[in-house]
Amino acid sequence: MITGQNLVGGLWESNASDRIFQTANPKTKEYLSPMFQEATSEQVTLAVEKAAAAFEAYAATSFEQRVELLKAIQDEIKQKKTEIIVTYQVESALPEGRAKGELQRTLDQIERFIELLKDGSFSQATIHTHGPDLRKMLFPMGPIVVFGASNFPLAFSTAGGDTISALAAGCPVIVKAHPYHAGTSELVAQAIHSALKNRGLPLSIFSHLGGQSHTVGSDLVTHAKVKGVGFTGSFFGGKALYDLAQKRSEPIPVFAEMGSINPVFILEHKLKSDENLAADLASSVTLGTGQFCTNPGVIIICDPSQESSLVRRMHEEMRKMELPPMVHANIELKFKEQIAELTARGKEVEYYFSDNNHAVIGVVSAFHFIENPSLSEEVFGPFSLIVHCHSLEEMVDVVAGLKGQLTATLLSSPEDQKAVQLLLPKVQAKVGRVLFEGVPTGVAVTQAMQHGGPYPATTDSRFTSVGSDAIYRWLRPLAFQDCPDELLPLALKKENPLGIQRRVNGVLTTEAV
Amino acid sequence: MITGQNLVGGLWESNASDRIFQTANPKTKEYLSPMFQEATSEQVTLAVEKAAAAFEAYAATSFEQRVELLKAIQDEIKQKKTEIIVTYQVESALPEGRAKGELQRTLDQIERFIELLKDGSFSQATIHTHGPDLRKMLFPMGPIVVFGASNFPLAFSTAGGDTISALAAGCPVIVKAHPYHAGTSELVAQAIHSALKNRGLPLSIFSHLGGQSHTVGSDLVTHAKVKGVGFTGSFFGGKALYDLAQKRSEPIPVFAEMGSINPVFILEHKLKSDENLAADLASSVTLGTGQFCTNPGVIIICDPSQESSLVRRMHEEMRKMELPPMVHANIELKFKEQIAELTARGKEVEYYFSDNNHAVIGVVSAFHFIENPSLSEEVFGPFSLIVHCHSLEEMVDVVAGLKGQLTATLLSSPEDQKAVQLLLPKVQAKVGRVLFEGVPTGVAVTQAMQHGGPYPATTDSRFTSVGSDAIYRWLRPLAFQDCPDELLPLALKKENPLGIQRRVNGVLTTEAV
Repeated sequence: MITGQNLVGGLWESNASDRIFQTANPKTKEYLSPMFQEATSEQVTLAVEKAAAAFEAYAATSFEQRVELLKAIQDEIKQKKTEIIVTYQVESALPEGRAKGELQRTLDQIERFIELLKDGSFSQATIHTHGPDLRKMLFPMGPIVVFGASNFPLAFSTAGGDTISALAAGCPVIVKAHPYHAGTSELVAQAIHSALKNRGLPLSIFSHLGGQSHTVGSDLVTHAKVKGVGFTGSFFGGKALYDLAQKRSEPIPVFAEMGSINPVFILEHKLKSDENLAADLASSVTLGTGQFCTNPGVIIICDPSQESSLVRRMHEEMRKMELPPMVHANIELKFKEQIAELTARGKEVEYYFSDNNHAVIGVVSAFHFIENPSLSEEVFGPFSLIVHCHSLEEMVDVVAGLKGQLTATLLSSPEDQKAVQLLLPKVQAKVGRVLFEGVPTGVAVTQAMQHGGPYPATTDSRFTSVGSDAIYRWLRPLAFQDCPDELLPLALKKENPLGIQRRVNGVLTTEAV
Repeated sequence: MITGQNLVGGLWESNASDRIFQTANPKTKEYLSPMFQEATSEQVTLAVEKAAAAFEAYAATSFEQRVELLKAIQDEIKQKKTEIIVTYQVESALPEGRAKGELQRTLDQIERFIELLKDGSFSQATIHTHGPDLRKMLFPMGPIVVFGASNFPLAFSTAGGDTISALAAGCPVIVKAHPYHAGTSELVAQAIHSALKNRGLPLSIFSHLGGQSHTVGSDLVTHAKVKGVGFTGSFFGGKALYDLAQKRSEPIPVFAEMGSINPVFILEHKLKSDENLAADLASSVTLGTGQFCTNPGVIIICDPSQESSLVRRMHEEMRKMELPPMVHANIELKFKEQIAELTARGKEVEYYFSDNNHAVIGVVSAFHFIENPSLSEEVFGPFSLIVHCHSLEEMVDVVAGLKGQLTATLLSSPEDQKAVQLLLPKVQAKVGRVLFEGVPTGVAVTQAMQHGGPYPATTDSRFTSVGSDAIYRWLRPLAFQDCPDELLPLALKKENPLGIQRRVNGVLTTEAV
C-alpha cells in the first residue's frame, strides 16, 4: 500500500507538514491518491545523520552479506510486482510491456552487481611485498544521495543502477524520489526496507525522501556528511546539483548524467544504399515517446547530390504513429514549448510534423547548424534534427562543433571506409560510446557498456552510470602499510580467503601471498 | 644551458615581456642567473591550442611508442644529470644526497609507467559479445596541465608522476614550472623536448611555461581546451585552481594533493614500551626540513598516567639538529610566521624549540585540540603537535574531529589490540593510507601505494598521485559497439595483438575473442 510517507533513517514517518503533493496520470490528467509528504529539513538531517552513523557497520559487511541483501531486494520487488506494474503505468502512462520490461531490467541490473560481488575482483586488491608491505583495495566513500529519474521510474530510480551500485559498494543510500512517480518509488523503497529487515542489516542505511520543490535535493547535497551524488536528468538539474556540491566547504563527487543529442552520422554511400534507414531512425526517435537518454536528437547525413529521400521517408514513417503521452504533463509541455520556440525562430530549419503533432523532425544545412549552437541543444522528446552536409569536410566541421555526448553512431557502407577512418578519431574524442550499426537507443547492461561521456553529457567522463563498472563512482583506494593479517580486510589477507583475483607484486593471481 | 625561455608548443621562445623573475639560493640568499621570462597570455593560448591540435595524433600512438618516449626521457635526463643535480642544489639548498636520490626516484617512477605500458592491462579492455558486440577500453582525456611542486623539484615536478602518467595515458602536457626551481625545471623540460625529437613524436605535445604570478596558471586552467589538471602544493593554491576549474563553462577534473597533518596515533602500551619512538618521530618530523607531504604534523598519544617522557625525549633529539634551510626563503618565512602566530595565541599549547629555532614541537591536551580546529591546520615545515589523550575515548574523539588526510599511523603493542580494532574503522574512513609501523614519511612508488585521501587532503579521493595507478586520473572509458575489427584500437581487436589481459564475457584472458 502506498502511504505517502517518508522513510527516514529506517523509520516510516508521517509529518504534519503542509508541503504535500500528488502524482497524476499523464493520459487522463487525473490526480492520483494518496497525497505525498515533502520531507522536512529535520527529516533530511536525520536521514543523513543516521546513514553516516551506520556507515562504519555497513562498510564492514562482507561481499557475501551484500549479495544476500541484493538478492532479498530482488525477491521483495518480485513480491510487489503486480502493485508496482499497475502504479508505474498510471503514474507514467508508459504501456504495460514497457513497465514489465523495465522491471525485469531492474532485476537484471541487480543480478549484475550480485555477480560482481561474488567475483570480488572489483575490489582491485593490489599487494606489494617488496619494500614496505603495501596492500590496497577499494573502500566505500560514505553516504550517497541518489535522485530518481523522470524517464525511467524503475531502472534509473529507487532500486536503479545508482542505488544498487552504491549499496554494492558498501555505501548507505538516501533516495530523493522523483515526484512524477512517487508511488512507484515508495513501493520499491518498501521492498528495499523489507530486504534490510529480512537480512538483519542496519535499517538506517536506506532512506527514501519525497519532495516536489528543490529544497529536499539541495538540503541533501549540501549536508556535510553526504559524500557523493548520483543523478540522471536534465542539464539544468544536474548542473545545479553539481554547482551546489562544488561550493560546499568539502566539495564532493557528483555523477550527473545530463542528456545528449547522440549524433548519428550517415555517410554518403550508406545513405544511398540502405533501404531500412528511415524506418529504423523513425522508430528510434519515437521510442518511449522520445524519452531515452540516447535518443538520436541529430542525424547528420552526407548527401552531396542532394538526392536523398531520407527526410521524406522518415516523415512518412512517423506521420501515422500514435505515441503514448510523455511521462508527465510538465515534460510534454516543455517539449511543446521548445518545438514552438524552434519553429518560430526563422526559416533556416524546415519542420515536419506527425499528423497528431506528437513527433517532429527538422531539416537544416550544416552551415546553419554550425552557425547556430542553440540548434545542438537537446530537445527532450520525439524530435530529431536532420543536418544536411554537402561533403565530408562539412561533416568534420559539424563534429568539431559538437559538445560532449553519451553516444555517436557512424553508419557506413564499405565504400565509406576512408571517410570513417577520418571521422572516427574526431568523434571518439567527444563521446562515451561509438556505434557502427543500428541506433543508439537501447543500452545493454554489461560490464563493457559505457553510459557516460565528456561534459555536458555527464559531469565526470571517467565513470559510467550503466553496467557493473558504475560501482567505481562510490569507491576510493585505501592502502594498508605493514598491517597485521588479523586487522586486514578479507580481500587483502595473506591466505586470500575470498579466493579473488589479486595483483600480487605485479602478477594477477588467486594464490595466497 | 638554462636560457630562461619558455617552451611553447614545441618551440623555445623568447619574448620581450618585462615580466621576468629569478630563482635564489636559499642558503646564501643570492639571486641566481639567468632571468626567467613569465609566459604571456598569447604563449599560454598557443601552447594549449597546439597541444589540442596534436592530441588526436598522440592519442593514436601505440603503447610501444609511448614506452620508447618514456625511455628516451630517462636517457635524456641521465645525460643532463650533472647539470640538473648542481642546479637542483643551488635552487633548493637540499643536499647532494637528496638531489641524487630524487633524480633516481624520478627515473624509477618513469620505469613503473614503462612497465605499465608494456603490460598493457591498465587499458582495462573489456569485451562482451552476447547481445550487441561491446568493447570498452580507457582512452586519454586530452591536454593536461601539470603544476610543478615546490618541495620536490624533480619527482613531483616537470618529469614527475603527473607529467609522466599523463604522457603514458596518451595526453599532451603543459607544465607550469614552479618559479622556485625554474632552472631545474627548464633542464628537465629540455630533456623531454629532446626525447620527443629523437622519437619523431609531435613536439607540441609538451610545453613548459614559466611564471611567478598566478596569471599563467589561471590562464591555463581556464582555457577551454585543457581537459584536466594535476597539482601538488598548498591547500590555498590547490583549492584556488579547483574552484577556477569548476567555474569554467565546461568543468574539468582537478587532482590537487593539498597536504595533510598525517596523524600518528600511539597507543597506551606502545607508548610505554617503545624506546625508539622519540628518535624515529624526531627524524620523521625534520626529514627534508619538514617539507614532505606525509610529514607527521600531529602525534596523538594515549597516556592516562601522564608519565610519558616522549615529548622530553623528542625535544632532546631535535635540539641539536642542524637542518638545511627550507627550499625557498618565502616558505621559510611562512613557517616562521605560522609558528610566531601559534606561540602568541595563548597558553593551551606548550612549545619546545631546537637550539637554532629551526624545529619546533608543541604539546596540547586532547580537549584543547578538539576545541580549537585551527590547531589541526597544516604547518608546513619541521613542526609537530603532540596531542595528549587521557583515554582511548579521547582518542576516538580526536579521530572524529579530523578532516581528510593522506595518511594515518597506528602504533600499537600486542596489548593494544582491542584499542586498534576500535580505532581502525574510524581512522580508515578519513585517510588514503594507514600505517601500522614506522613513520609516514617515505612514499614507496608501487602499484599498491595510495597517495591521496578524502578532502582536503586531495580534491578527488578516488585517485592517487603516486604509483602507476596515477594514470587513471587522465583516462576515461570509451565503448565501441559493433565496430569492424579493422577500426578497433589494438587493445580491443579480435586477435588480441598486444597479448594483454582482457575481460572477455566476464573472464580474464589473453586469448583471442
